[in-house]
Amino acid sequence: MAVTKPSIPKGTRDFSAVEMARRNYIFDTIKGVFAKYGFSQIETPAMENLSTLLGKYGDEGDKLLFKILNSGDFLSSAGGPLNPNSDKAALQISEKGLRYDLTVPFARFVVQHQTELTFPFKRFQIQPVWRADRPQKGRYREFYQCDVDIIGSDSLLNEVELIQIVDDVYEALNINVALKINNRKVLAGIAEAIGAAEHMVDITVAIDKLDKIGLENVNAELKEKGLSDESVEKLQPILKMQGSQEEKLATMRSVLTSEVGQKGLDELETIFNYVKALGLKKIKVELDLTLARGLNYYTGAIFEVKALDVEIGSITGGGRYDDLTGIFGLKGMSGVGISFGADRIYDVMTQLNLFPESVLEQTRILFANFGGEDEMYSLKQVRALRAKGFKVEIFPDATKMKKQMQYADKKQIPFVALCGETERNENKITLKNMVTGEQASLTLEEVAAQIAR
Amino acid sequence: MAVTKPSIPKGTRDFSAVEMARRNYIFDTIKGVFAKYGFSQIETPAMENLSTLLGKYGDEGDKLLFKILNSGDFLSSAGGPLNPNSDKAALQISEKGLRYDLTVPFARFVVQHQTELTFPFKRFQIQPVWRADRPQKGRYREFYQCDVDIIGSDSLLNEVELIQIVDDVYEALNINVALKINNRKVLAGIAEAIGAAEHMVDITVAIDKLDKIGLENVNAELKEKGLSDESVEKLQPILKMQGSQEEKLATMRSVLTSEVGQKGLDELETIFNYVKALGLKKIKVELDLTLARGLNYYTGAIFEVKALDVEIGSITGGGRYDDLTGIFGLKGMSGVGISFGADRIYDVMTQLNLFPESVLEQTRILFANFGGEDEMYSLKQVRALRAKGFKVEIFPDATKMKKQMQYADKKQIPFVALCGETERNENKITLKNMVTGEQASLTLEEVAAQIAR
Repeated sequence: MAVTKPSIPKGTRDFSAVEMARRNYIFDTIKGVFAKYGFSQIETPAMENLSTLLGKYGDEGDKLLFKILNSGDFLSSAGGPLNPNSDKAALQISEKGLRYDLTVPFARFVVQHQTELTFPFKRFQIQPVWRADRPQKGRYREFYQCDVDIIGSDSLLNEVELIQIVDDVYEALNINVALKINNRKVLAGIAEAIGAAEHMVDITVAIDKLDKIGLENVNAELKEKGLSDESVEKLQPILKMQGSQEEKLATMRSVLTSEVGQKGLDELETIFNYVKALGLKKIKVELDLTLARGLNYYTGAIFEVKALDVEIGSITGGGRYDDLTGIFGLKGMSGVGISFGADRIYDVMTQLNLFPESVLEQTRILFANFGGEDEMYSLKQVRALRAKGFKVEIFPDATKMKKQMQYADKKQIPFVALCGETERNENKITLKNMVTGEQASLTLEEVAAQIAR
Repeated sequence: MAVTKPSIPKGTRDFSAVEMARRNYIFDTIKGVFAKYGFSQIETPAMENLSTLLGKYGDEGDKLLFKILNSGDFLSSAGGPLNPNSDKAALQISEKGLRYDLTVPFARFVVQHQTELTFPFKRFQIQPVWRADRPQKGRYREFYQCDVDIIGSDSLLNEVELIQIVDDVYEALNINVALKINNRKVLAGIAEAIGAAEHMVDITVAIDKLDKIGLENVNAELKEKGLSDESVEKLQPILKMQGSQEEKLATMRSVLTSEVGQKGLDELETIFNYVKALGLKKIKVELDLTLARGLNYYTGAIFEVKALDVEIGSITGGGRYDDLTGIFGLKGMSGVGISFGADRIYDVMTQLNLFPESVLEQTRILFANFGGEDEMYSLKQVRALRAKGFKVEIFPDATKMKKQMQYADKKQIPFVALCGETERNENKITLKNMVTGEQASLTLEEVAAQIAR
C-alpha cells in the first residue's frame, strides 16, 4: 500500500483535546441553559433526502449542498445517459445530501413525527452542518449549530424566554453582548406605509447605511432602486427619528398605520414590556430597524446578538416563523427559535481569554511508574482515587523518571504521586505539587483531600 | 413549491427527546469513565479524503464508503469522459467520503498531528460513522461509535486499564457481561505449531464450531480446507483441552513452542495476573480461543464483550495493533483500543429495562399560565427556580386548564404550580404533585425543597 501523506478536506477541522475541552465547555453551558427552560434534545441524520433539502435555501444554497453519490452501480441506475450539465447530472446519480442547517431538518422532523409530539414542542439540537462554501478564515465547510425552537405556540412569551436564554448563556460564558431585535411585520409595515411594499429589503439596507453615508446619499440610493419621490419623502420621519426606544416606537406608531405595521409594533412593545418587568442579568436588548436577517421564512420578531468587545459577525440569531412546516404540508404551526454559533463564540472567548483555567485540566494526578511491586501498589491507589471520582493516570511504562515527569508537565497535570518501597512499607503516597514543587508523604485520604478542589 | 411527504433515507434515524435522553445517559456514563482514566476527547471531520479511506477496509469496505460528489461542475473536472464502470467513475467525480469508522481517522490524526501530541497519547472519540450497508433490523447506515485508544506505549498495563474501563462502564450501566480475551500471537502460534501458518483463520473458525458440530466434523472440515492430516493431528491437544484457564494455558504452553506463540501466552498470562491481583467489580474475563476479530490490523490482545442476558452480538470490542499508523507513514507506534457499540448497548438496556426512571424526566415543574398579572407573578417564580438550577417551564399561552394539565401529563412533568390571585396576595405557590394528586400552598423556598430530589 502506498504511503499517503495524511491531510483532511479543505474547510474541515480536527479538534484537539484542548479545543474539544473548550468546545464542550461552550456546548455544556448552552445545553444546561436549554434544559433549565424545559427544552429537550433531538437529533436528525446527517444525510437527508435531496427532495427534503432542495429549494429550501435558494438557488445559491442548492449549489452549496454536499450531495452523496448513490451507492452501487449508480451509472446504470441513472435512468439513461448523464445530462452534460453537472447540476442536472447530479440529480441522476445522487438522491441524498448532507444537512445544510438544523432548521429544515427540524421542520421535516416535526411534520414526520407530528402525531408523536406534544405541542407546543420545545426542542434543541446541537449537530454539525455542511456547506460547500469557499473555505476562508472563520468560514468552514463543517461547523456546529446549536438551535433551540418552540413550535406550536404563537405566544410572545416564547420570544421573551429565548431572550432570557440568551441572557443566561452569555452571563454563564461571561461575554458582553447586545441583543438587537426587530420585527418582520414592522419592516413590511414601513414599506407598505410609504407605498413601496416590494422594496422592503432595499429600505432595510438603506436604513442600515444611514450612519455611514448620511441621509442625502441614502435618499439618492433609494431613488436609484426605483422608489418614487413620494415614497422617499414618506420615509423621512423614520430615517430622521431620534430619542429613546419609547420615542422611536411612538414615531413609528404615527407612520405605520397599516394593520400589519401596528401588529408588529404591538409585538415589539409586548416583548419590551415583559423584558423590562422581569429584568435581565447581563445583556441589553435594543430595537434595531436595520436588522432584516433571513427574510425568507421569518414573519415576526427577528433577533441578532453581537459581541461588544470583539469585531465579529453575529454570534446568535433567529426569529419567529409562522409557516416553516408548511413546506412539508403541515400548516398553522407558528414557531420561534434561535441558533447559537459555537465556532464564533469559541473565537470570541479565545480572543478575550474567557475560558476558565479548569476547563483545560484533564487529569488531576499522575502516578509515576516504578514497576514491579511499586507498580501494583500504585495501581491500587489509582483505583481507589478513581472510585472517589478523580481523574487519575498511571504512566504505563516503568521508564525513566524524567520522561514521566515531562509527560505530566506537557499535559499540565497538577499533581504527581510517587510510590516506592518506603511508601509501600508505610502505606503512604509521596505527593508532588507540580506548580509549587512542594512534596509531602501522605495517606490516601490526605491525598484525596489535597487534590480535591 | 410542491409539498413533499417528508421521510429520511433508508437506514438512518431520527432520535426523539426520549431516545436522546437515554442515549445521552449511555454516552455520558462512558465519557465519565474515559475521563477518570485520563483519556481526552478529540473529534475529526465527517468527511475524509478518499485517499485516506480507500484500501483500509478491504474491497467490500471500499464499496460501502459513502462518497461525496465533488462540488461545482464535477463533470468538467472529471478529467475526460466518465468510465462506464461506476466504481471507477466514482473516483473521477468524488474525492471525499464519509468516515467509515473512528480507527482510520484516528491513525490519520495521530500521524498528521504527531508533533503536537504528548505520547503515550490517550484519546477517546464519540462520533457517528456511515456505511452503505443493506439496512436491516439493528443495522444502520449511520451509527455512533465510542472509541478509546492509547497509542505510543506497548505496556500491557494499557490492556489492563481498558479491561477496568469495561468493568466500570458495565457496572455503571448495570449490564451483566462477559469479556472474552484472546491474542493474535497465540492464534498465529497455533497455526505455526501445527505447520499451517496460512490457515490461521480456518483454524479459528473450526475451533469456534467445536461445541456445535463436534470434534469429528471439525477435523473433517479442516481437512477440506486443505490442512494436512499431520496438522490436524497436531491440533488435537488444543481441540480436546479441558479444565481451568490455568490448565488450558499450560496445555498451550506445551504445544505452542514457537517464539510468537510463547510471547502471546506471556501476554495473556500477564494480563490475567494483573486483573486477578487488582480484582474487577462486575465483569468476568475469559480466555476464548475462538475469538479472532479484526485480524487485519490486530497484533496482540483481542477483546470482545457480550451481554449475558440478551441474545445480541458483541457490544464492545477491540485489541492491540502494532502498526496502525504505518499506513500513513509513521512506524513503530504500538497502540491498543476498544470501541463501545452505543446502539447495541441501547438495545440491551431497553430490552432489560435498565434505564433509570430519572433519565426520562426533562422538566421538573410546569407553571400553569392564567395570563395577566398571574402570569407575571408566575414568571418571577419560574425565574427564581431556574436560578436555583431547576428545570422549569411555564405554559406559554393562558389557555384552558385542561390543555395545560394534559401537556404536563404527556411530558410526565411531576409537579405543576398554580398561581392565581390568592397565591399572589399571599406570596405563595399552590403546588400539585402529579403522581399523588396532593396539593399544597407553599412558599417558593418550600416548593424548592419539595421538588428537589
